[in-house]
Amino acid sequence: MSFDFGKNIHLTIFGQSHSKAIGAVIDGLPAGLELDMAAVDAFMARRAPGQKGTTARKESDQPVILSGLVDGKTCGSPLAVMIENSDARPCDYEQFRTVPRPMHADYPASVKYKGYNDISGGGHFSGRLTAPLCFAGAVCIQYLSQKGVKVKACLTEAGGVSGNSIKECIKAAQEDGDSVGGIVGCCITGVPAGVGDSGFDSLESNLSKVLFAIPGVKGVEFGAGFEAAAMKGSQHNDPWCFDQDGSVKTKTNNHGGILGGLSTGMPITFRVAFKPTPSIALPQESIDLASGKSTVLKITGRHDPCIAVRAVPVVEAAAALVLCDYML
Amino acid sequence: MSFDFGKNIHLTIFGQSHSKAIGAVIDGLPAGLELDMAAVDAFMARRAPGQKGTTARKESDQPVILSGLVDGKTCGSPLAVMIENSDARPCDYEQFRTVPRPMHADYPASVKYKGYNDISGGGHFSGRLTAPLCFAGAVCIQYLSQKGVKVKACLTEAGGVSGNSIKECIKAAQEDGDSVGGIVGCCITGVPAGVGDSGFDSLESNLSKVLFAIPGVKGVEFGAGFEAAAMKGSQHNDPWCFDQDGSVKTKTNNHGGILGGLSTGMPITFRVAFKPTPSIALPQESIDLASGKSTVLKITGRHDPCIAVRAVPVVEAAAALVLCDYML
Amino acid sequence: MSFDFGKNIHLTIFGQSHSKAIGAVIDGLPAGLELDMAAVDAFMARRAPGQKGTTARKESDQPVILSGLVDGKTCGSPLAVMIENSDARPCDYEQFRTVPRPMHADYPASVKYKGYNDISGGGHFSGRLTAPLCFAGAVCIQYLSQKGVKVKACLTEAGGVSGNSIKECIKAAQEDGDSVGGIVGCCITGVPAGVGDSGFDSLESNLSKVLFAIPGVKGVEFGAGFEAAAMKGSQHNDPWCFDQDGSVKTKTNNHGGILGGLSTGMPITFRVAFKPTPSIALPQESIDLASGKSTVLKITGRHDPCIAVRAVPVVEAAAALVLCDYML
Amino acid sequence: MSFDFGKNIHLTIFGQSHSKAIGAVIDGLPAGLELDMAAVDAFMARRAPGQKGTTARKESDQPVILSGLVDGKTCGSPLAVMIENSDARPCDYEQFRTVPRPMHADYPASVKYKGYNDISGGGHFSGRLTAPLCFAGAVCIQYLSQKGVKVKACLTEAGGVSGNSIKECIKAAQEDGDSVGGIVGCCITGVPAGVGDSGFDSLESNLSKVLFAIPGVKGVEFGAGFEAAAMKGSQHNDPWCFDQDGSVKTKTNNHGGILGGLSTGMPITFRVAFKPTPSIALPQESIDLASGKSTVLKITGRHDPCIAVRAVPVVEAAAALVLCDYML
Repeated sequence: MSFDFGKNIHLTIFGQSHSKAIGAVIDGLPAGLELDMAAVDAFMARRAPGQKGTTARKESDQPVILSGLVDGKTCGSPLAVMIENSDARPCDYEQFRTVPRPMHADYPASVKYKGYNDISGGGHFSGRLTAPLCFAGAVCIQYLSQKGVKVKACLTEAGGVSGNSIKECIKAAQEDGDSVGGIVGCCITGVPAGVGDSGFDSLESNLSKVLFAIPGVKGVEFGAGFEAAAMKGSQHNDPWCFDQDGSVKTKTNNHGGILGGLSTGMPITFRVAFKPTPSIALPQESIDLASGKSTVLKITGRHDPCIAVRAVPVVEAAAALVLCDYML
Repeated sequence: MSFDFGKNIHLTIFGQSHSKAIGAVIDGLPAGLELDMAAVDAFMARRAPGQKGTTARKESDQPVILSGLVDGKTCGSPLAVMIENSDARPCDYEQFRTVPRPMHADYPASVKYKGYNDISGGGHFSGRLTAPLCFAGAVCIQYLSQKGVKVKACLTEAGGVSGNSIKECIKAAQEDGDSVGGIVGCCITGVPAGVGDSGFDSLESNLSKVLFAIPGVKGVEFGAGFEAAAMKGSQHNDPWCFDQDGSVKTKTNNHGGILGGLSTGMPITFRVAFKPTPSIALPQESIDLASGKSTVLKITGRHDPCIAVRAVPVVEAAAALVLCDYML
Repeated sequence: MSFDFGKNIHLTIFGQSHSKAIGAVIDGLPAGLELDMAAVDAFMARRAPGQKGTTARKESDQPVILSGLVDGKTCGSPLAVMIENSDARPCDYEQFRTVPRPMHADYPASVKYKGYNDISGGGHFSGRLTAPLCFAGAVCIQYLSQKGVKVKACLTEAGGVSGNSIKECIKAAQEDGDSVGGIVGCCITGVPAGVGDSGFDSLESNLSKVLFAIPGVKGVEFGAGFEAAAMKGSQHNDPWCFDQDGSVKTKTNNHGGILGGLSTGMPITFRVAFKPTPSIALPQESIDLASGKSTVLKITGRHDPCIAVRAVPVVEAAAALVLCDYML
Repeated sequence: MSFDFGKNIHLTIFGQSHSKAIGAVIDGLPAGLELDMAAVDAFMARRAPGQKGTTARKESDQPVILSGLVDGKTCGSPLAVMIENSDARPCDYEQFRTVPRPMHADYPASVKYKGYNDISGGGHFSGRLTAPLCFAGAVCIQYLSQKGVKVKACLTEAGGVSGNSIKECIKAAQEDGDSVGGIVGCCITGVPAGVGDSGFDSLESNLSKVLFAIPGVKGVEFGAGFEAAAMKGSQHNDPWCFDQDGSVKTKTNNHGGILGGLSTGMPITFRVAFKPTPSIALPQESIDLASGKSTVLKITGRHDPCIAVRAVPVVEAAAALVLCDYML
């Protein structure tokens, strides 16, 4: 039970990297929501492979609506979408059953699923499953937009550098047959105060739950995050104040727009740490489960040198999904 | 809907800081589990106030079992526990309805609950609600212990310092009427490979969901965490190897014992960032919602100078709860 | 995972017949709902034992609010209630571990819980667990009442007779050391059209789910129910018409106020069949699991001759809970 | 949130009668389950239209597996299936927005979905949505079969008659432009004692929840059902006894194989009442929502004269789904 999320909106994702199709079923959307499919396509294109500095795998990523839409508007029945997998090459992956790739799920998945897991392309552990998440996110963004909520993420660091150095750093890693990690920052504006819940359904709880479902995420922090741990209360505490229009604000935003699991009306800010792409061209140590001996693994094919690059819209999608679930 | 967690084990927490009682209902425990109540009490005592360097509030924190236990063993019916609130002083908090405390939930809670929220002692946003979580965690730890799983957390940093400096740093903050943040590291051993799920029910997803329900948590990272974002794949990737007994391991543990949302058999490691205690003795800027003017707030009473100290068993409880839910 | 219900309202019930206490946690109630505790008590008194023609067990059934209520109003935090078990006599029931009572859960419960189930008083299979359900129902009825929704059930048949004969029939059964079954009819008025859902969350799906959780329920039918199966479409179909005030109605109500899982605006009507009380004074055949031989069982103590009598408010509580979950 | 069911197995159904496709996502199946697709097809053919005495609508009903299956075996990732809608004629249904059909969901659906519901073919209220349920049921039946569990339903009554008269009764109704209701009886064998739960997750609770999701169901009863309400305890109580092999049985099965929400090891028996097909050729009274006047509606097209006929495998599917959820 792994690809279901949400209480008011309910998202179910299906598919493996090389199955006939991947897709999503979204239940709970209000009837009458007009979908701007061009905007959905544009959003999904940001995640799609084949961009500069990303994998060369060609997938149209074209979502096919199976149900839930009548004359371009949601009809109250679940919105189901399918994205066909056209560029599957299952033959490349069989070897990883016996020689698991470092930092991939090959080994634990084979234990959990007793060897029946779909190893091809990473199966349902593949980053490709973020395509239907992006579809759902794009729909949620359109709903949130009507409520004045905006979600904006960007790559703030890669391989330890920021700003203009990011591109160079990624390019250098690629040329070395290596990869780099990165950090995606995200800011959500327009959420009124009082959205969220305390306890296990706090805004942070559900945002982190969905963010950690994105392959490669190793850390999530809100507001001042880990830096807060090194601060004094007198430094960290954000004083309440009135805005010019009389609304309640804080002078600073160390709290990242959330207190007690509830939105405060300030921008919701968080940062997501992505690990370096595990598939690198450099030879790596691994083991041969058949022979019981150590071996050296050489991964061929082209891979994103920095998965955080294409993860930017995925982070936005995750955030939009969670906010939508609270605000519906 | 805020204090429910779990699929196989189902925990419901109730109560406010100054309600008649707080407590928990735990459904899904296997029948016949013998509870070591002395161990439960000892675990809860680690979280209880009145310890050196924590608040002076006296609560017996004595759990009273209401149902689910027959002759010291679980009977298959929900295990319900109540902890009476004996030291409540409701009168101190009314002022915070109009003058919200910085970095507390007073303001967003009053918006969400239209002023009907229980402001006294922080209501159900209070850290006191972690007592029933610790009860549940103590029970889960006993179950996990039978499976060879151990959960161990400790305070690794406070106010930016580590080691012996931690005590001094906290003491200095207390003397200044200030507070400091801190970091709790946690390590779970004995989890076999293949526990967890991909997608929204990944180990990281559910661990972070419960961890962010602990008041004051601002960040969660697994394995190398945010540092991974600055690393190259060739540095970060943990090579697979065979242990002396032939079992599968990794040479390093940057992945923190989880890949693809599943345990790898290596220790599961994560770090949790806590903000500085928001209640400090120093005067703070705030607003008066009645007059519409800014004001200065002086919080009296004694408060933990570093909430991360007492949060150590709470982190263990959260981790045990999540692991128990997967392993039942 | 057995005593949880609801999506918008979330009810958790705990306790066994003879545990220290039984109770409920109700999450999701809107903040600011003023509880009329006298009305709650009056509602629960209808279910309480000790009435004419019911068991003589004396329980005050007095609910103690543990949390969630401030100055008589809900505060947004879960409403937790405890009812102490004061009249427990655990010694009577041990024999049923080896000689299971006919038509009771003694045997399957002992299989499921490996003998660790609380056999005393029926454990958590006891009808006593309907007391916290009635508490929750009483609260929901107060919420629904504000929306103009009324829930009214009554005993329409017992032992195959109706009207004035019911009392005589029950009395005769009691004098014979026997028991009788009964039918409770229920009518919910004031629900506007369009409440409910299609599919697995249809009004009938959730109403029946909760109704079948009441001990002794063997059948649930809506509108014409089983009689509809013997009818022609031309007889059964309810024609749409306009009411005098222009609102949409049907001329007849064979559909019982629900079509496609949604309310139509007509009264929601259903009938619930209760089996005869399984505990009767007459000697009964059973088996001795220790000796492997058949035996004769004599159940002592006093038992309701017709459980349907006290089930009337329980049916109302179940209906109110479900409607409340949809209308919140 | 209407088409999701299950805790261990999780079924999501999507689609409308005339959407591009209908389908299902089934999460939680064990990896390595080999699907006999011929058996799945044969099962689904029993529900398919075009049989003698059913609608003439032609749908291949051919399920297309989108994901979750590798080399004919489940791989642990959700099993997604799509059935294309090839015979859609959307033009026939627009009139029902203003003139709602008696006993259909047209009117309440239009209220709930503010007119945005897909009226064509009944939208997602259509009986066609039982096709993906049958797919899921067919898969569950294969899983249960490995555990020795068999599910068998049949039409026991139609229009008030049973046995050989059923065919004649249905034929007569069809010739009259009318329809009849019916009763489907179901028996599940091979379930060991102790499966199920007490309370809201009792076997009866979840079976009825799913059964009432089938369009046209008006009543569900277990064992002696409504007849139990007219019986005495001494008649109704099933004495425990030992079978020849020493296993525990009951001499009679008025309890229908379930006590306290748990299976007893006896056959689980229940009956489901279906209303007469609401769409009949005879002219019917209705209203015109545009003019505010009463009108006469004439429904054209061919419709099943007795929906209970094709519902037989749907009842089996529903039962198998629920049992599978408990036994996984």
